[in-house]
Amino acid sequence: MSTQNLTLLTDLYELTMMQGYFETQENETVVFDVFFRENPNKSGYSIMAGVEQVIDYIKNLHFSYEDVDYLRGLGIFSEDFLHYLSGFHFSGSIYAIPEGTVIFPKEPLVKVIAPIMEAQLVETAILNIINHQSLIATKTSRVVFAAQGDGIMEFGLRRAQGPDAGLYGARAAMIGGCVGTSNVLAGKLFDVPVMGTHAHSWIMSFKDEYTAFKEYAKLYPDACTLLVDTYDTLKSGVPNAIRVFREMREEGIISKHYGIRLDSGDLAYLSKQARRMLDEAGFTDAVIAASNDLDEMLIHDLKMQGAAITSWGVGTNLITSKDCPSFGGVYKLAAIQNAEGEFIPKIKISENTEKITNPGNKTIYRVYDKETGKIRADLICFADETYDTSKELLLFDPNATWKKTRLAGGTYTIREILKPIFIHGECIYTSPSVMEIAEYCRHEKETLWDETKRLFYPHRVYVDLSQKLYDTKAALLDDLSR
Amino acid sequence: MSTQNLTLLTDLYELTMMQGYFETQENETVVFDVFFRENPNKSGYSIMAGVEQVIDYIKNLHFSYEDVDYLRGLGIFSEDFLHYLSGFHFSGSIYAIPEGTVIFPKEPLVKVIAPIMEAQLVETAILNIINHQSLIATKTSRVVFAAQGDGIMEFGLRRAQGPDAGLYGARAAMIGGCVGTSNVLAGKLFDVPVMGTHAHSWIMSFKDEYTAFKEYAKLYPDACTLLVDTYDTLKSGVPNAIRVFREMREEGIISKHYGIRLDSGDLAYLSKQARRMLDEAGFTDAVIAASNDLDEMLIHDLKMQGAAITSWGVGTNLITSKDCPSFGGVYKLAAIQNAEGEFIPKIKISENTEKITNPGNKTIYRVYDKETGKIRADLICFADETYDTSKELLLFDPNATWKKTRLAGGTYTIREILKPIFIHGECIYTSPSVMEIAEYCRHEKETLWDETKRLFYPHRVYVDLSQKLYDTKAALLDDLSR
Repeated sequence: MSTQNLTLLTDLYELTMMQGYFETQENETVVFDVFFRENPNKSGYSIMAGVEQVIDYIKNLHFSYEDVDYLRGLGIFSEDFLHYLSGFHFSGSIYAIPEGTVIFPKEPLVKVIAPIMEAQLVETAILNIINHQSLIATKTSRVVFAAQGDGIMEFGLRRAQGPDAGLYGARAAMIGGCVGTSNVLAGKLFDVPVMGTHAHSWIMSFKDEYTAFKEYAKLYPDACTLLVDTYDTLKSGVPNAIRVFREMREEGIISKHYGIRLDSGDLAYLSKQARRMLDEAGFTDAVIAASNDLDEMLIHDLKMQGAAITSWGVGTNLITSKDCPSFGGVYKLAAIQNAEGEFIPKIKISENTEKITNPGNKTIYRVYDKETGKIRADLICFADETYDTSKELLLFDPNATWKKTRLAGGTYTIREILKPIFIHGECIYTSPSVMEIAEYCRHEKETLWDETKRLFYPHRVYVDLSQKLYDTKAALLDDLSR
Repeated sequence: MSTQNLTLLTDLYELTMMQGYFETQENETVVFDVFFRENPNKSGYSIMAGVEQVIDYIKNLHFSYEDVDYLRGLGIFSEDFLHYLSGFHFSGSIYAIPEGTVIFPKEPLVKVIAPIMEAQLVETAILNIINHQSLIATKTSRVVFAAQGDGIMEFGLRRAQGPDAGLYGARAAMIGGCVGTSNVLAGKLFDVPVMGTHAHSWIMSFKDEYTAFKEYAKLYPDACTLLVDTYDTLKSGVPNAIRVFREMREEGIISKHYGIRLDSGDLAYLSKQARRMLDEAGFTDAVIAASNDLDEMLIHDLKMQGAAITSWGVGTNLITSKDCPSFGGVYKLAAIQNAEGEFIPKIKISENTEKITNPGNKTIYRVYDKETGKIRADLICFADETYDTSKELLLFDPNATWKKTRLAGGTYTIREILKPIFIHGECIYTSPSVMEIAEYCRHEKETLWDETKRLFYPHRVYVDLSQKLYDTKAALLDDLSR
């Protein structure tokens, strides 16, 4: 994607509004926030992802001659405005929560501070990228949790929503905790492990299953996972695999990484039977891998039933986040800078209460319990507010202000999680590698209480407002409802 | 996508199997079928889409120097095989059902006849492309049906699963029946109408709602849709819109295309109230558009309740096919050519009965009722079977063979729906434009009975096997279960 020009990957209304601002306004500097309202998949948390692709997008942002020509052809843009577009570059500042960080609803994940014409244009692509990758990273994190330490392989490319969904979905899946992906292009572009063995067609292309297994084992003795369900798993597949493993053992070519893959039937029953057969034949270290419409719920359940599976290939349900295929991030105006350089908070009210925004130029402090290192709460406040951790910190639920928690000075630590990425058009951030982000993400998840990681009805993490932000919001709401 | 090299957009196992075939086999010519097992979204039919992108993919298929280098670095491929890859091009034949055609489960949507190494490689990308676009075209077709003739605008880019999902999703949505998309890049690349007006941020950036509306109306008098829910739809938004429309009327600049958009609250109630207010002010031709988490079910229900909405912007639920975000197309070996050039049928059985494949080199005839032009059934048969429509045609359900229908000679017509796209590596097919495909798709849907188009529990269309194919399949199953 880094070399693609995604400048027109935007909604038409961004451009009609841009022209509107061009004609009517002074291109004031504004603050827009990206935030989401609910964790996907009924999760207790989400995982931030996509920042590197946002950076690529912003760096490449320009209207080519063909782009301007196309827009001219629509007959709704003036030559003055088209001229402005042809010289367009992004001159604003962008703050973002680094990839792999655990995130919660209502928090500004990305903050754009830019002249309104520029800030408006980038809305759609930023949302598209962050929504997609954060969704898949979050879904993956749930699947990985369910597997209780077993490896999860990302196998979803064929069912992903187009090439990019497969490619960047694999990237996000690695951030969320997969041990590898089947996607070769993702392996090449993101330097992540690629995995896979063979399909049913391999078996069917030989005169019989034994011959297919045998030939495969000769070729790939070091990573020999045989797919055993083409004809009959327990009557044909597993016995033929055992015959081949036995011959490999006799020839002294059996490796540390060998085993079978189940891709249909009841995985709990078949895996236990197959385990027994493999063990009886002396192949106690043969791995049993499984695939076939897996997700975190089914893996959780198979684990509960003692399925003898220790490696999981997860496709469709992970790469599309099947039970919740969109992240729901939005991009809302939060402040307008006045002539004195002050950010004047703005709010959007709505018939739907949950659509009301948090006004102002904000940041987020994450509050940790000093002893355990676990998250106590996140605190959204104005960007210029500071906290002294030697003093008591009062936290309160913005939706039920009588719910108060006082943290004594010295018992907590805080960390600002929104980081500068672009300052006045210049990128000042270097993305870590995907595997580094994945490692950071593993540490991030250790800051969550187990109750928050639970798959079903997890405990929610408190996201509070500072007193000053709460008061400002209340005053604006009062004003508007007068 | 046409200029992108998607050659490595494949699962690793395609390459390990390719090397396996390279080492062990004579690269026999094989037949692979793409088919799906169930219509998505509980639909009675699906819509074929993505063929043009498959063509682009096949035409661009080659391993670059960097690709080969990356594969070498994995340490599992021989220099001989890598040398073969560096000279790789696709030399096979591909047949496909044209885009916009209504399709049904079990039918070969795409048939690849090629040396097994080539046929295996292309599996993943073909599935990725066809699965994605057919999914979104099908979902869109349902939404369009629910709207009973009102226009559906595709507004989903920000929630699509990555840039391609937005871009090709918009393409598929136009094929499925949308009147336009907000996606400017899709407009440019596919020459389809782009639509959109303004967001809440436009309203919030002016000193008040009236001023924001007024400025917008000055700029875009010819397509003036005002978003009325930023502060209070009925108390502020609609009255301010009416004030502006009144002023436009006085100045003589009111156009044919003007109106309001609702984006929150109860759309049935608000639209009826807004309609009354607009009508009382004499703006009976003002359009009421709506958006906000719409799908076919909600549009159907709002229509039932008499919502005064005649234009619908559909985003997340359409672009992700939220209730069923994957199409489930698979790619299965169906035949292997022997030395005499004969295609020997192959079958895959499975613990899951519905995963059993249809063997052989096949085609599909669509059988129409001569009088009404409606589809009677689809008939999957061997590619060399022919039918004489002056004679009686016996159709039978392959899962319940006693269910028989006899069509008298002269009462039906038939049409082969699988068309040649590539022959021996050469593309012989020219894709129509997206708008031409959309028009064709509209006609295709007229060949469906209303019972099949119904949103809930639709009547299914029969997909039968020819006697010869049925007998061959039964014999192969008998053989394998002996």
